[in-house]
Amino acid sequence: MAKIKVYVTPKHGVLDPQGKTVEAALHTMGYKNVSNVHIGKYIELEGPENKIDEMCKKILSNPIIEDYRYEVTE
Amino acid sequence: MAKIKVYVTPKHGVLDPQGKTVEAALHTMGYKNVSNVHIGKYIELEGPENKIDEMCKKILSNPIIEDYRYEVTE
Repeated sequence: MAKIKVYVTPKHGVLDPQGKTVEAALHTMGYKNVSNVHIGKYIELEGPENKIDEMCKKILSNPIIEDYRYEVTE
Repeated sequence: MAKIKVYVTPKHGVLDPQGKTVEAALHTMGYKNVSNVHIGKYIELEGPENKIDEMCKKILSNPIIEDYRYEVTE
């Protein structure tokens, strides 16, 4: 089984309330020049490389509002 | 300002209920040979490189239960 890292991010143009909230919090804490904060998911798993695309579409991401990409490391 | 990618993962030995749930769901859906599912956060932002470590400790991660690492890309 391969070690796989999956990155799931909100699609561009889709609201990212979590990112906005963290950005506002960083500004409040004095980190004024932080911008474009986007928050997604990072998933590590061991599994079959030939099924990962299917798993990403079916359960690891919501393809309507999220993009995903993955890296096979071993 | 640099473009920075931050990866936040549950520490080894800390319970990862989200990972366990997704692993169980994958098994239920027929992906039997998936294991070691761990779920963390993936954060993209633009900001000052010299402050990123501080931001990770103070707000982007919970250092008691999570590890973080980051990459500066530009």
